[in-house]
Amino acid sequence: MLTYSFENIGSDTLYEYLYKSLKQDINDGVLSPDQKLPSKRSFAKNLSISTITVENAYSQLIAEGYIYSIPKKGYYVSNISNIKNVPNHKFNFDNSEKYISTDKNRTSPDVINLASNHISADNFPFSIWSKLIRDVISNEKDELMKPLPSAGSFELRNAIAKHLWDYRGLDVNPEQIIIGAGTEYLYSIIIQLIGRNFIYGVEDPGYRKISKIYNSNSILCEYIPLTSCGVDTDILNKGHADVIHISPSHHFPTGIVTSAGTRYELLAWANNSADHYIIEDDYDSEFRLVGKPIPALLSIDNNEKVIYMNSFSKSLSSTIRISYMILPKHLMDKYNELLSFYACTVSSFEQSTLAKFISQGYFEKHINRMRNYYRKLRDMLLDAIKKSELSSRCTILEENSGLHFLLRISTEKSDKQLKEDAVKNGLHISCLSDYYMNPKHSEEHTIIVNYSSIREENIDLIISKLCEVVD
Amino acid sequence: MLTYSFENIGSDTLYEYLYKSLKQDINDGVLSPDQKLPSKRSFAKNLSISTITVENAYSQLIAEGYIYSIPKKGYYVSNISNIKNVPNHKFNFDNSEKYISTDKNRTSPDVINLASNHISADNFPFSIWSKLIRDVISNEKDELMKPLPSAGSFELRNAIAKHLWDYRGLDVNPEQIIIGAGTEYLYSIIIQLIGRNFIYGVEDPGYRKISKIYNSNSILCEYIPLTSCGVDTDILNKGHADVIHISPSHHFPTGIVTSAGTRYELLAWANNSADHYIIEDDYDSEFRLVGKPIPALLSIDNNEKVIYMNSFSKSLSSTIRISYMILPKHLMDKYNELLSFYACTVSSFEQSTLAKFISQGYFEKHINRMRNYYRKLRDMLLDAIKKSELSSRCTILEENSGLHFLLRISTEKSDKQLKEDAVKNGLHISCLSDYYMNPKHSEEHTIIVNYSSIREENIDLIISKLCEVVD
Repeated sequence: MLTYSFENIGSDTLYEYLYKSLKQDINDGVLSPDQKLPSKRSFAKNLSISTITVENAYSQLIAEGYIYSIPKKGYYVSNISNIKNVPNHKFNFDNSEKYISTDKNRTSPDVINLASNHISADNFPFSIWSKLIRDVISNEKDELMKPLPSAGSFELRNAIAKHLWDYRGLDVNPEQIIIGAGTEYLYSIIIQLIGRNFIYGVEDPGYRKISKIYNSNSILCEYIPLTSCGVDTDILNKGHADVIHISPSHHFPTGIVTSAGTRYELLAWANNSADHYIIEDDYDSEFRLVGKPIPALLSIDNNEKVIYMNSFSKSLSSTIRISYMILPKHLMDKYNELLSFYACTVSSFEQSTLAKFISQGYFEKHINRMRNYYRKLRDMLLDAIKKSELSSRCTILEENSGLHFLLRISTEKSDKQLKEDAVKNGLHISCLSDYYMNPKHSEEHTIIVNYSSIREENIDLIISKLCEVVD
Repeated sequence: MLTYSFENIGSDTLYEYLYKSLKQDINDGVLSPDQKLPSKRSFAKNLSISTITVENAYSQLIAEGYIYSIPKKGYYVSNISNIKNVPNHKFNFDNSEKYISTDKNRTSPDVINLASNHISADNFPFSIWSKLIRDVISNEKDELMKPLPSAGSFELRNAIAKHLWDYRGLDVNPEQIIIGAGTEYLYSIIIQLIGRNFIYGVEDPGYRKISKIYNSNSILCEYIPLTSCGVDTDILNKGHADVIHISPSHHFPTGIVTSAGTRYELLAWANNSADHYIIEDDYDSEFRLVGKPIPALLSIDNNEKVIYMNSFSKSLSSTIRISYMILPKHLMDKYNELLSFYACTVSSFEQSTLAKFISQGYFEKHINRMRNYYRKLRDMLLDAIKKSELSSRCTILEENSGLHFLLRISTEKSDKQLKEDAVKNGLHISCLSDYYMNPKHSEEHTIIVNYSSIREENIDLIISKLCEVVD
């Protein structure tokens, strides 16, 4: 086995010395391209050092492109004649990927991802964010160190309440807002607040993650199918759900907007029992591209039945992890009594930064800019589709809201085949059928085109790839 | 009722106009000191505007000190002749307090708090943090927008693993580290991972919050008393707990360090059943002020029985909300299979900043500086106690680790009386008896002195107040 003596280590740490020795041997050709390196454990044992030392040396070499890793196989020497042409992050990416083999949203950088709705780095307001966070750190040192209220900083809750009033017409008491590190975390608070002995109704089709989270928390879920007006209230009324989790403003992935009639039927269902609640997930209401925003169900709830949830994942970035919910007054009282021992899960640095981002008007500007940007991107995509071979064999649906539309395609291929062929063409897609729990309701041949992370310059490439996939 | 016409509103928003009108009337003496203002709702109704508008105007006036609020009573005009002498944050504080009536750790700024262990703003490395976050925002735009692995960024997990090796002698695979927004959140992940049908043993005395969190998640807890060597393993062996949650390096609040013998007994207990696990909460191991750090229980666990938890709450600040746990390999595999659909709860901006803070050596420097600072603070406190009237009637215990010590006092007063008298003297204290679930084991007359947030210049004041309280 490859071995090194640490005799001449000098002032280096073990890790640095090992890293330098390997690098030298790769540069000198002693280790040749694609040669397999020893596993971390056996190398560590052989050199009588810790595996973490080997791990760190390997990580550094991966980061610099001298070696590469293949998940479940091991570490190999790179062909260093290529190194200078490859951006650094590619290697970082390869490296981090072995830690997240189950994260299906993460694809290699060469693949265009229509299944992800993360936003592109061009669209985050980095310079303003950087300025605000610097101001916060300069001016609020004492405040930043003080424990925040469990429900979040007053400043941020007030800014959100004002924003909801100005842009969503919602008259919300900031005292009823709870800030949390993502809606997923807030679901767990709802479960603890409402109780575990209830059945939660979730939309079918819908985000699978929602029922996964409830199931992981030992909650039974009932799947409620949709009509063109929203969840099927006949089935809801005949079923066993106590709490329903819905997105009335804009359902994902079908894009269905819950009709006014269904909204009142939902509230009537909620008013039937003290145990009934509606969780309104308003995740992308900022991005209605045509017409006026749809009023929130919360705005017509007179009986404290609606728990409203929203996040900054779509409107800013999912990587800042700030969401909020608005509890009916009696549930907020219960939260204060029973659950306010929890520390707020969002950093005070970021709460303060976001509060200023909203209250100083940057959030409004950002949303307006993004709405225009997404409208343009969507129009370019639709235009490219119309001009392509696809146009004769596809229908475009639900293109007026959110950051995706549906492409219904006339093809002989199964959805499974479509997705596999897409991957072969360097395209990651999802289909409507992926979101159905009950396969018999599912529709084949409908591709979901999430366009928030794609770049203008790739549109023609994407459409030509789609044409090949469908053929 | 007080009324305003909005006829001359000009380009102001309703909120601004109302705010300016009220401020004018307070300045002009039209509204007099301590005069009660209309409630938000009635004022809004009277003016035909939304309550949020009134709320915002009131909030602004509170922030500027023109009015003040009394929880559950209402809003009153301040005596503005005092305004210029009072720091702004005092009013912010009053204002935010009405949102957190259940947060007992938050006291008025004039009260010295020995019951809180937040850190003082003088001790957070703001300038380095600010520089690093600016660098991260400048250099890693693409990376910051990409969804992170569920368990957290590779960069931060690697930095933590290396830190644990260098400073705690723990050989940890970064792939087994999970980053989360606070240990409280990570407990909920453990519950979902291990299962809900187990009984969790918690230390008595101990942090009450731990059993509150388990109970809120429908988990039964069993309280295990302590001996001078750690949890009582006889009682543990005879009891029903499947999982135990302990802090062997330094128990809060007693300061007990679990002995080597008890450690092996605990591991033997864990090895008795496939369902048994030990959650090792290593929350302040960085701050052993005398002697070598206590090795982690994890370091002698050969059977994948120990879940190790730590956070940056004590070592940096509780307000940045970054904690981590190290799962045994088989539990990490289970996590990857079942729970990695969860998004990581910590912002990628802060994960990247913290990773650099650690890997560039700042964290080590910071901990060393803080250890010296706390040692000095503790020595000054102990010295002041020795020179005071207290010295003849108190014993000091467990002063060599963590950020607190115990002051056992000879007094006739009950702990309840001690705490009430402390509040009257502008001192917020907690007693050992506050941490007991089983009152019959509890010891009276032992004050917990948390000194992480106190200032040198207040030491004499604190001791003289303590003398008055005890008398």
